[in-house]
Amino acid sequence: MNETELGSIDATGQLDADDRLKPEFVRSVIDRVEAGDADGARALVQPLHPADIADLFELAPAEWRPSLAAAITDLLDGDVFAEMNDYVREELIDALEPAQVADIASELDTDDAVAIIEDMEPDDQREVLRAMEPDDRAAIEEALSYPEESAGRLMQRDLIAVPEHWSVGDVIDYLRGNEDLTTDFWEIFVVDPAHRPAGTCQLSWILRTPRNVAISDVMKREQTLIAVDMDQEEVALRFQKYALISAAVVDGAGRLVGMITVDDIVHIIQQEAGEDILKLSGAGEGDINEPVVESYKSRVRWLIANLATALLASTVISLFEGTIERMVALATLMPIVAGVGGNAGTQTMAVTVRALATNQLTRSNTWRSIAREIRVAVLNGGTVAAVIGLGVSLVFANPQLGLVIAAAMLTNIIVAGMAGVLVPLTLDRLQQDPAVASSVFVTMLTDSMGFFAFLGLATAAGLAG
Amino acid sequence: MNETELGSIDATGQLDADDRLKPEFVRSVIDRVEAGDADGARALVQPLHPADIADLFELAPAEWRPSLAAAITDLLDGDVFAEMNDYVREELIDALEPAQVADIASELDTDDAVAIIEDMEPDDQREVLRAMEPDDRAAIEEALSYPEESAGRLMQRDLIAVPEHWSVGDVIDYLRGNEDLTTDFWEIFVVDPAHRPAGTCQLSWILRTPRNVAISDVMKREQTLIAVDMDQEEVALRFQKYALISAAVVDGAGRLVGMITVDDIVHIIQQEAGEDILKLSGAGEGDINEPVVESYKSRVRWLIANLATALLASTVISLFEGTIERMVALATLMPIVAGVGGNAGTQTMAVTVRALATNQLTRSNTWRSIAREIRVAVLNGGTVAAVIGLGVSLVFANPQLGLVIAAAMLTNIIVAGMAGVLVPLTLDRLQQDPAVASSVFVTMLTDSMGFFAFLGLATAAGLAG
Repeated sequence: MNETELGSIDATGQLDADDRLKPEFVRSVIDRVEAGDADGARALVQPLHPADIADLFELAPAEWRPSLAAAITDLLDGDVFAEMNDYVREELIDALEPAQVADIASELDTDDAVAIIEDMEPDDQREVLRAMEPDDRAAIEEALSYPEESAGRLMQRDLIAVPEHWSVGDVIDYLRGNEDLTTDFWEIFVVDPAHRPAGTCQLSWILRTPRNVAISDVMKREQTLIAVDMDQEEVALRFQKYALISAAVVDGAGRLVGMITVDDIVHIIQQEAGEDILKLSGAGEGDINEPVVESYKSRVRWLIANLATALLASTVISLFEGTIERMVALATLMPIVAGVGGNAGTQTMAVTVRALATNQLTRSNTWRSIAREIRVAVLNGGTVAAVIGLGVSLVFANPQLGLVIAAAMLTNIIVAGMAGVLVPLTLDRLQQDPAVASSVFVTMLTDSMGFFAFLGLATAAGLAG
Repeated sequence: MNETELGSIDATGQLDADDRLKPEFVRSVIDRVEAGDADGARALVQPLHPADIADLFELAPAEWRPSLAAAITDLLDGDVFAEMNDYVREELIDALEPAQVADIASELDTDDAVAIIEDMEPDDQREVLRAMEPDDRAAIEEALSYPEESAGRLMQRDLIAVPEHWSVGDVIDYLRGNEDLTTDFWEIFVVDPAHRPAGTCQLSWILRTPRNVAISDVMKREQTLIAVDMDQEEVALRFQKYALISAAVVDGAGRLVGMITVDDIVHIIQQEAGEDILKLSGAGEGDINEPVVESYKSRVRWLIANLATALLASTVISLFEGTIERMVALATLMPIVAGVGGNAGTQTMAVTVRALATNQLTRSNTWRSIAREIRVAVLNGGTVAAVIGLGVSLVFANPQLGLVIAAAMLTNIIVAGMAGVLVPLTLDRLQQDPAVASSVFVTMLTDSMGFFAFLGLATAAGLAG
């Protein structure tokens, strides 16, 4: 049986094995939009899950997105916008009237509404907020008052908080009797008279307990509380470490002000874990929906930085022009030493950056990790040096040249291993993001050292004498 | 107020700002173990959360881990092992008797027990299974019968399934009346007489609905079902896309056989998103707890592969030895063209690998993405070529040399951009993991093309004439 057939969520059978809309489907929707057949397009899109409608916009060619939006306006609810890629959403929001944006934002949880509104121009933002209900507006304005990427922006204010003296029955009656409470919660929070969290209670515990038991006997007192100004990356790591489903957010005075649920965290974990690879390679946001000019701007900076380090390496080579002139084989061999060293540095750097990002590398095991990387580097360096040394000795019938390249390779791989662990660690200690700038420094070291060690040893050995 | 003070989970005040145990604390526990003061060590460890006890083992020096385990055996429950780093756990499990492992595994959810047992040697595995209760053993043996990293290994069999004809009151009475039901669930599954899922019901909906309403009127019929043999990475993406908290796992006949909850998925998302950076750099598992010899083995393979591609580049250079001999400045400049090109290739490759891993790059937008990367490459290439061309013209007072390096740089950055998107895409179409082998091919292309374009153009232009 086919995987997608199993998911009855795919009512339309339009998803491929990766849960993405099939190209033929996307094409047929666009064809109808192109033909001005809005009803036909709407009929196709109607059965889709909001996440798939969001995908449809990402997969449709950029020039057709506004007409698509116009054709299926009534299907474009807040959930669709909440699931949409940031760049695609921004482009669509720009094309809408402030009143329409206000309508959409009003439907959403505070965190999703904030995600839509926070990137708008200040003027547009003000207009949208003015068009909203006072309650919704107050919630969003409060969220916007917290720093970007903080718990305060992520949290929703709709949550269930009950006093300690209630029984399980009181809680159930309260939940049944109040129409306007949220339905999106997985735990309830028990609070003291000052509205400070006293405990957390999973819904399953409530359902499995007789009505007359006190809620304070069911709740768990050890809770993981989130400070409202905590960075979202730390929030995500805390959710992961303690396997949380939801967590109370508290203000500076310890009062319960909101709740964060794991479904909002899952996106952040994915994003934070995935962005290191993009940062390390100097690819900026690295989103395939990013405008070309933005991608150009973020990437060219790193290429220019790389050009500068390459010039340094080039200067190192120029010190040995005389040696190269006398033995041009050195010019053919020198990139090998620099290249393999660079690769070894990248390996160690990737390991270190990940260990730092996941809080695995702490002050307790720093020295152990450095020692570990040096041991790996010695083993790697020894192996690669033996292979290249032997090969060059034989091919060039010059054992001395083989010895020189082997010694240079060993040196450079050890330097690479040390740089790969020390550079990110140092940046981390200096409160810099190790993923962002490590590459430039490590490449600079492995390139320059590769050329210097090889050409320097060759000169010292009188190879080109 | 300090962040960690807020989390009352940190009862001991022993966590740093990253939620990791402070080095002084780790040191003081080890000091007590070293002094043979098991009671003292136990008193320190007792108040910790299981996730922090697991951390303690990771942060303690490897040689002290067995003595630490011996000192605090009674605190080492299944939850601690479930939270532990794979390598650290394997090492500890090896040191335990099969009966002890069986005791620990019996306490755990099936998925956590499987995680502990699946990596043991077959003989030890059999012995542990033999020491377990028949029920637990059957559950684990069934899980082990599914492929590694599949939904069948991840799922737990303890779940709440109720028939369609029950009322909300029936469900609550069933949950209250059966002592041995699980308490770890966030949704209940409604099944038809053939035990096929008919709908899912959030606990909050049950709590907010009067007792006499039929459960089939409360449940949601559109569900995301997981096939038991689905790969865990696809499971994780599906959880993320549809913001799931838990999902039903079904066998080939569509019958409900288990449940996966989001807390198990969070680890996978982190791991899968983070491992691309390690694969792309050829760093293998890249875990800082991995034994040195394992790290050596996984990394040296890629260094040797890199050595092979470097030899190819070296051969390209050797074709132009005559040219270099006549104009040794070419040898100093050529690594710049190759290096910056390599960097540009890595940028595009990182973007493409991430887009493929997150299912953002599909058949619908492949051509658009290739065209996009070529446009970015032309902009980047043009800028970098202009900078280096002008610089070289001035420094070497040789406009022709400047023109040659600019043309070579532009060519190489465009080749790099195309390789960076086409190589991972091709590997993906061939059902290979694009993160694993892309780097080798892209580097080979950018190195060889960099040297060939620069030295070839220089020769053709008669620069060294």
